[in-house]
Amino acid sequence: MPDTRHTKYLLSEDEMPKTWYNVVPDLPRPPEPVLHPGTKQPVGPGDLAPLFPMALILQEVSGDQYIEIPEAVRDIYKQWRPSPLFRARRLEKALDTPARIYYKYEGVSPAGSHKPNTAVPQAYYNKQEGVTKIITETGAGQWGSSLAMAGAMFGIEIEVFMVKVSYNQKPYRRSMMQAYGASVHASPSDLTQAGRAILAQDPDSTGSLGIAISEAVEMVATSGGKAKYSLGSVLNHVLLHQTIIGQEALLQMAQADDYPDVVVGCTGGGSNFAGISFPFIGEARKKGLNTRFVAAEPMSCPSLTKGVYAYDFGDTLGMTPLVKMHTLGHDFIPPGIHAGGLRYHGMSPLISLLHDAGVIEAKAYHQTSIFEANLLFGKTEGILPAPEAGHAVKGALDEALQAKEEGKERVILFNLCGHGHFDMAAYDAYLSGKLEDYEYPAEAVAAAQARMPVV
Amino acid sequence: MPDTRHTKYLLSEDEMPKTWYNVVPDLPRPPEPVLHPGTKQPVGPGDLAPLFPMALILQEVSGDQYIEIPEAVRDIYKQWRPSPLFRARRLEKALDTPARIYYKYEGVSPAGSHKPNTAVPQAYYNKQEGVTKIITETGAGQWGSSLAMAGAMFGIEIEVFMVKVSYNQKPYRRSMMQAYGASVHASPSDLTQAGRAILAQDPDSTGSLGIAISEAVEMVATSGGKAKYSLGSVLNHVLLHQTIIGQEALLQMAQADDYPDVVVGCTGGGSNFAGISFPFIGEARKKGLNTRFVAAEPMSCPSLTKGVYAYDFGDTLGMTPLVKMHTLGHDFIPPGIHAGGLRYHGMSPLISLLHDAGVIEAKAYHQTSIFEANLLFGKTEGILPAPEAGHAVKGALDEALQAKEEGKERVILFNLCGHGHFDMAAYDAYLSGKLEDYEYPAEAVAAAQARMPVV
Repeated sequence: MPDTRHTKYLLSEDEMPKTWYNVVPDLPRPPEPVLHPGTKQPVGPGDLAPLFPMALILQEVSGDQYIEIPEAVRDIYKQWRPSPLFRARRLEKALDTPARIYYKYEGVSPAGSHKPNTAVPQAYYNKQEGVTKIITETGAGQWGSSLAMAGAMFGIEIEVFMVKVSYNQKPYRRSMMQAYGASVHASPSDLTQAGRAILAQDPDSTGSLGIAISEAVEMVATSGGKAKYSLGSVLNHVLLHQTIIGQEALLQMAQADDYPDVVVGCTGGGSNFAGISFPFIGEARKKGLNTRFVAAEPMSCPSLTKGVYAYDFGDTLGMTPLVKMHTLGHDFIPPGIHAGGLRYHGMSPLISLLHDAGVIEAKAYHQTSIFEANLLFGKTEGILPAPEAGHAVKGALDEALQAKEEGKERVILFNLCGHGHFDMAAYDAYLSGKLEDYEYPAEAVAAAQARMPVV
Repeated sequence: MPDTRHTKYLLSEDEMPKTWYNVVPDLPRPPEPVLHPGTKQPVGPGDLAPLFPMALILQEVSGDQYIEIPEAVRDIYKQWRPSPLFRARRLEKALDTPARIYYKYEGVSPAGSHKPNTAVPQAYYNKQEGVTKIITETGAGQWGSSLAMAGAMFGIEIEVFMVKVSYNQKPYRRSMMQAYGASVHASPSDLTQAGRAILAQDPDSTGSLGIAISEAVEMVATSGGKAKYSLGSVLNHVLLHQTIIGQEALLQMAQADDYPDVVVGCTGGGSNFAGISFPFIGEARKKGLNTRFVAAEPMSCPSLTKGVYAYDFGDTLGMTPLVKMHTLGHDFIPPGIHAGGLRYHGMSPLISLLHDAGVIEAKAYHQTSIFEANLLFGKTEGILPAPEAGHAVKGALDEALQAKEEGKERVILFNLCGHGHFDMAAYDAYLSGKLEDYEYPAEAVAAAQARMPVV
């Protein structure tokens, strides 16, 4: 009889890491410079100052391995952190696998996902530098609601451009932002030139993260210095803040007296995958371990598995600096899958570099397979995951089933980055057989990639 | 400057209580007997056997102070327990009160509320006695989704009658039950005589917990012994299971080196209020403390503040045994407030007795005041509470403001029984000014009370 006793690994608040983990010293080569969209020359910290407070810009370019978490940030982290790490014994039993499956659970935060890990420090550093208003965008709304919460806590006004397909699919996330006091616009909107340009081309546009970024950046640029911009993924400092996840998981795996053979996370812009994996990538380098790292992404928006590694804009209209990353083309509009948090044309430059260098692997999944995995997970472990998080569940299931086929042990650690309580309409669609899979839109991607800037 | 540092009190899994706390030995007089609806004579355990497994019936009538929690139940409890206890320093600061406010947070469970505390043991005891199917009802869906989860874990089929107004207001709770594998019907339905009788009178009936109970009980009674019944509140054994909350809170208040002057919980059927308060009621009796206990209920369904203390049916159609409780009349249909979990005509017999004996107090609130309280709580503490839980928030705010007025310290402990992630439509209604308050329906209650059985 397999042991199905529940096992949870907890840390005390005193054991909560006091630093974030910067992966830059572990990279096989230095990060590529960020380029000015006009001159195509490397930008300096001063070029980013209209968008971000200086403390975050310095984190963006830092080469230090450890960066201290301010006490005021740790104080709020303690509302939900340290988060639990579970051994998924009931799931293992259902799969009849020799693999040992562990998951770190970030759905215990007040917003129900990992996003507050960076929303809180971003609001904190903005507050420190006297910023009174932050403008951002959000896909599924996990990021927007987290920043809205952090804004309420620090007394900063928050304005959010929310991708229209999610605004309609997930109205409860919009309400949540408003409950925290934020104002929310469906993007594309008629509030910006960027939004109006998209609507002129396609009045029925359901939007994309890239378009919403264009709108938010334009709004900041035209605010006369009255507002700063904030991003919930992609950038180095955002990924940095999420490494509290992996830092805790390292301590918890030690409690379990075990160590992962493979670390799995879902990827949209890359922040939760970075959060769980970067500290383990550091361990692998320092100790010469053969740990595998698997990024799980949607088949319909597969930036790592199908994108090119090249300089491109972070937004659809080409207003942001150019970054070297895996990209499907900055004006590619992904299909309206329910994992709205993963609908981004690009990928974090740090994760792109790690993928290009062969440090990490990537896999792409159809959304029906994600919901099938989530239902099995919910029935065995009790938690119904968000569609985004389901990509990591599916990736972990694949690893466990492969171990079973090979008849070998395998230790799997994955990041369950959020619960699905806001996504029950998507579960409904799946359960009633109405959830569609979208084939990889090869032609649209090729066309978008042909429109990328030449660097 | 007040100290606004975040403070959370945690227990290790080893410290999780191994017993539930039975309040019966602490009552000022013995509980009143349950009567057969036909003969009006006291029922024995055998009379309840068609509805419940014997282990739960024995808990229902037990006079033992402590009842052991089975290891298999504790094992699943550990998925989310021990739950955190917080000191609400940011809220205290916003209120500028000398009161110290603590809250126990039950929204960390996979279902987002305290209901799994009893769903898991109920499924366990049914499984132990070979039951393969359980039929139940649910108001807002918190109970139904919790039993659906527990059923999935123990391999028991779950069928749920969900009050129609919530079925329509909260479709995500229905999807959640279905995701766990349960079947769900909007009540009143045409599947039972009870449902058809209500629909014949009023085809547009939005239902009530009382009607849904009638339907579930009838379905069990006509199942030929193939299904048992389960209730998510009201009964002694259900309240017993929830005392894990207060047992933990006692240990956590000791960690904080503090003790409540007043304990606050919301009441619908009474289970979460009992969960937090019963162990403290026991402490008060044994140590001669003057702790106050405040039950917070909706103004539109105020069973404790406006009900009579008398024998009445637990369901609308008069199929259940008669219990002595505070009741608005078994066929009173409460207005469709968003706190669907509190829309019940009666109150747990144990809590009714304690109220009648002056051990506990009760207060009634309008729903707009609940959402106002919840927004303040969300903006300061980060968590957006469920509308039901908001009654406890409001009760705690009132106590804190009274302490401020008196310029005196007061230690307040309340139970935050669930998060509001499924209730954002209600927040939306409040934020857009569309949330209505319902005056106390005095005439409808008087008419319903006139139709109560004569005992």
